[in-house]
Amino acid sequence: MEDFELEFEVRDYECDFQGIVNNSVYLNYLEHARHKYLLERGINFTSLHTEGIDLVVSRTEIDYKYSLTSGDRFIVRVKTKREGHLRMVFEQEAIKVPEGKTVVKAKVIGVGLSNGRPMKIEDIPGFRALLG
Amino acid sequence: MEDFELEFEVRDYECDFQGIVNNSVYLNYLEHARHKYLLERGINFTSLHTEGIDLVVSRTEIDYKYSLTSGDRFIVRVKTKREGHLRMVFEQEAIKVPEGKTVVKAKVIGVGLSNGRPMKIEDIPGFRALLG
Amino acid sequence: MEDFELEFEVRDYECDFQGIVNNSVYLNYLEHARHKYLLERGINFTSLHTEGIDLVVSRTEIDYKYSLTSGDRFIVRVKTKREGHLRMVFEQEAIKVPEGKTVVKAKVIGVGLSNGRPMKIEDIPGFRALLG
Amino acid sequence: MEDFELEFEVRDYECDFQGIVNNSVYLNYLEHARHKYLLERGINFTSLHTEGIDLVVSRTEIDYKYSLTSGDRFIVRVKTKREGHLRMVFEQEAIKVPEGKTVVKAKVIGVGLSNGRPMKIEDIPGFRALLG
Repeated sequence: MEDFELEFEVRDYECDFQGIVNNSVYLNYLEHARHKYLLERGINFTSLHTEGIDLVVSRTEIDYKYSLTSGDRFIVRVKTKREGHLRMVFEQEAIKVPEGKTVVKAKVIGVGLSNGRPMKIEDIPGFRALLG
Repeated sequence: MEDFELEFEVRDYECDFQGIVNNSVYLNYLEHARHKYLLERGINFTSLHTEGIDLVVSRTEIDYKYSLTSGDRFIVRVKTKREGHLRMVFEQEAIKVPEGKTVVKAKVIGVGLSNGRPMKIEDIPGFRALLG
Repeated sequence: MEDFELEFEVRDYECDFQGIVNNSVYLNYLEHARHKYLLERGINFTSLHTEGIDLVVSRTEIDYKYSLTSGDRFIVRVKTKREGHLRMVFEQEAIKVPEGKTVVKAKVIGVGLSNGRPMKIEDIPGFRALLG
Repeated sequence: MEDFELEFEVRDYECDFQGIVNNSVYLNYLEHARHKYLLERGINFTSLHTEGIDLVVSRTEIDYKYSLTSGDRFIVRVKTKREGHLRMVFEQEAIKVPEGKTVVKAKVIGVGLSNGRPMKIEDIPGFRALLG
């Protein structure tokens, strides 16, 4: 299992009328960190899409522990493991910096689709190396 | 347990480069349905906020079963139950119409905060009646 | 010049920390109304995209007259005219209902791209009829 | 007139079904750059909001010159000038890096509201110094 982390800063437009980052926006942060993690390993979502392969989210579990607000800085961590032949698990968390407070913890499951049909994770270009 | 449903239509700007609704956008749909459900029962999120009370999401579990795309119509259903004194559970699903295909199934847990501190669900104005 | 209108309701997640709809969200509303307007005339953005033709925005002018907030209902109007051979002008406004208050007024210019190169508006499938 | 610039990178969720950054998202980028510009000068939007003062956008003109896509890096520049007593003009542009290609050019007009009523720009805390 490999580790990766990416730093973000909350932008005002991501906060809702409660003055905190809206619950849906954390899925954007998590996705961006996953895509950068995969890109660093040579896996490009938009290139795969043009080849007819899409990695899509099949399940997300997310615990919201602490609410971020305007200007807060945080890092998103990514770890991966395979679950069976068809599921890629991303264990993710967001940590407020510099305090080190846990913001969210999440488990995101991705599956590969080749022209809409499920495919083995190891058959997605670039994933075999990732699985080690 | 009461039932509620609200119809939506996918807007093109909600679709990402894969041509399908982005995984984060479903949390927007689910939230909007919850807020309309509560509003119909006399509970107004923005009014509560001005009184120092915020209902925030503490956990979301969502299974993505079928990807929506441009122009698709769907309904979002809401059912609620209390879990302990501090947690309100929203059982939600999105169903594509007219086919009746399940799009997502979700369990969203909300907690009440009074000036940032946890409060009993039954003490949130309007929730006692909701809990029956 | 033809007229079209579509009704919307503000969703809480579209409001920012100021408690009003964020300035960028109005462009989402305007775009959705344009796409529905064109769809009603047989022009489908996503189908055109798969044929290698994209209608993209080249300029937007928008005056914000009145701020919408949680639960507000409004209609978006669309009128079109051609400007030269390459530009389609959408004159749009959002009107709060039932009061009839003007929310925004906008002029949006769209251009057609065929595999990235400018094309005559009348050569975009479906637009000749629209231009009358 | 002072200069400011901030670097961004396109995130995949900001791209729509056409594979390019949606036209509304540029207003998010421009807003974030304006807020960081003002913050650097000691002006905090969320703090002002809690004092009953909101700086809101009254008009935006934006020319879209070049479409950004997945992973593109760009800088957003901000210059300001006062126009009359009530209007603050932000002249902004986004430039793709490292190529230096112009992505968008925009003129955004902001006005100050004190509990909903227009106020002189120089009376907004922090703006007098900004106006020089």
